[in-house]
Amino acid sequence: MSNDVVIDCLQYNNWDRELFRKTRDGGVDVVHVTVSYWEDLRETLLNISRWHRHFIHNADLIVPIKSAADVAEAKRTGRLGIVFGFQNCSPINDDLGLVQILHELGARFMQLSYNNQSLLATGCYEEDDPGITRFGRQVIQEMNRVGMVIDMSHSAERSTLHAMELSTRPIAITHANPDFFHPALRNKSTTVLKALGETGGMLGLSLYPFHLKNGSACTLKSFCQMIEETVEIIGIDQLGIGSDLCQNWGYDTLEWMRSGRWTFVADHGEGSAEDPSWPDQPSWFRSSDDMPNIKSGLEQRGFSAEDINKVMGNNWLRFFHESFGAAN
Amino acid sequence: MSNDVVIDCLQYNNWDRELFRKTRDGGVDVVHVTVSYWEDLRETLLNISRWHRHFIHNADLIVPIKSAADVAEAKRTGRLGIVFGFQNCSPINDDLGLVQILHELGARFMQLSYNNQSLLATGCYEEDDPGITRFGRQVIQEMNRVGMVIDMSHSAERSTLHAMELSTRPIAITHANPDFFHPALRNKSTTVLKALGETGGMLGLSLYPFHLKNGSACTLKSFCQMIEETVEIIGIDQLGIGSDLCQNWGYDTLEWMRSGRWTFVADHGEGSAEDPSWPDQPSWFRSSDDMPNIKSGLEQRGFSAEDINKVMGNNWLRFFHESFGAAN
Repeated sequence: MSNDVVIDCLQYNNWDRELFRKTRDGGVDVVHVTVSYWEDLRETLLNISRWHRHFIHNADLIVPIKSAADVAEAKRTGRLGIVFGFQNCSPINDDLGLVQILHELGARFMQLSYNNQSLLATGCYEEDDPGITRFGRQVIQEMNRVGMVIDMSHSAERSTLHAMELSTRPIAITHANPDFFHPALRNKSTTVLKALGETGGMLGLSLYPFHLKNGSACTLKSFCQMIEETVEIIGIDQLGIGSDLCQNWGYDTLEWMRSGRWTFVADHGEGSAEDPSWPDQPSWFRSSDDMPNIKSGLEQRGFSAEDINKVMGNNWLRFFHESFGAAN
Repeated sequence: MSNDVVIDCLQYNNWDRELFRKTRDGGVDVVHVTVSYWEDLRETLLNISRWHRHFIHNADLIVPIKSAADVAEAKRTGRLGIVFGFQNCSPINDDLGLVQILHELGARFMQLSYNNQSLLATGCYEEDDPGITRFGRQVIQEMNRVGMVIDMSHSAERSTLHAMELSTRPIAITHANPDFFHPALRNKSTTVLKALGETGGMLGLSLYPFHLKNGSACTLKSFCQMIEETVEIIGIDQLGIGSDLCQNWGYDTLEWMRSGRWTFVADHGEGSAEDPSWPDQPSWFRSSDDMPNIKSGLEQRGFSAEDINKVMGNNWLRFFHESFGAAN
């Protein structure tokens, strides 16, 4: 058995047994799943409890990942490894002590803000970004201490650069693309990517149509060309996949993702009032089954087998190894 | 270094660095501490978080115990091992999923009721005891599954017997005495003790004056004679110490223990309106330093060294080994 792993460092699905099986059979070894967006502590514990039931009822298919060592064990037993993450800091409420508590319960990634201003940082849809807050600085320090990765996927630029400056450990942008590829507010500037690379951080490339050039019509060739150009900026060791695949959900979940409880008026996020619904995935990346297409696309662009395996998961595994344990 | 351990399976103290040091220097290897009485989930997480700060600021003195193996490591490094427990089921609110979550956070003992009727079982001060509730049966099953010990110290008789019947794993009464020694509502009948012994459960003997013959004036000799008689009922392998030492607290904490939020009128519990305050400890057991006195008392009664070590901690260690892991 090879030591190479395939890791998708962000999927947000309505998981069931069939989807666990499909994802595993599609060749994905580990997936970073979203436990909470807007949920507070109490709701997050309900979500974690739901995951505990998944682990019991699907013990033959999935296994929790709390350390890089758990990945090898997942692979050895042919099960899909599950890493918990939060897309917002709402799970910690206003309580610094909850960082360690949620880390003990398995959380390994937490975004400091999700689109909007949070208690910690600014989101990418706010007009102005004053950077990391007083509470945010404490939380960054605590996340560094326990081994919870700072994820700035949905954060604004100044906060993102500020987080890298304050964090003593490399941070991640688990699911976003460079904005030279497609100028969405969710995509990242070359300044951010350079700083991310220089600080040993990781970028997970997104397959969510709103982050792609030409959206759902984006071609595999164009996606792989973007990867090639991104390597020039950030380096081959700092790139992975964070597909942002959202499967098995109805429109109500999209509304929840976008509007949470913070607005009574529909917020269309990256969509529009004319076309508010889930976007169609590009034909070459409809589900985890299509991971090999990215591999093929990179082969065709002349990437070495070693570099392809880095992007497909080995880089994330190294990053897990460096990031999930307590600081020395 | 000997393999014998000294375990006090219940203390409720206002812990600080000095008390950690005194307890450890007094020769106690492990103490089961009370994290919550009436606290709900949110308050319990605040208490756990306070313990996390204790572990950081006193890393040279204390270490969390989540398994029997951790006890050996605590002893090897000369630190006091801390086992988390709850004296009530309030930390799980009405949510079965919180059993596993709190177990992951370190809770290894939970009482099903504390003096009053709870959602799970009846407390020892209620007039009538209908036994384990519908929710209680589910919680017992779940505690059995994850490895959280059912503690019936403050529960009523029928509920206690019912819990032993329903539980597939041995239960504990971490801190109480036989009622033949002193007929307090908190002490246990011979029927309960017999059933406890027959099901492999453990009794932790209490040094709290309200559980002692002649209260604060109880003699060491009389206490050790009680142990001898209790061995006849429950067997030498099922006995340990659960001193119920309460140190460094003011009267407000005693009020909280007794009245929680369930009454606006002072409830004097085992005390009385005439003498509502903390009782004085017997002269031969004022703090953990006095553990050796019990050892001497048992020696004088002719207990073998092996049996004394069983009562002082080896039995609890065996019980931890059998009880703290997930069910097969």
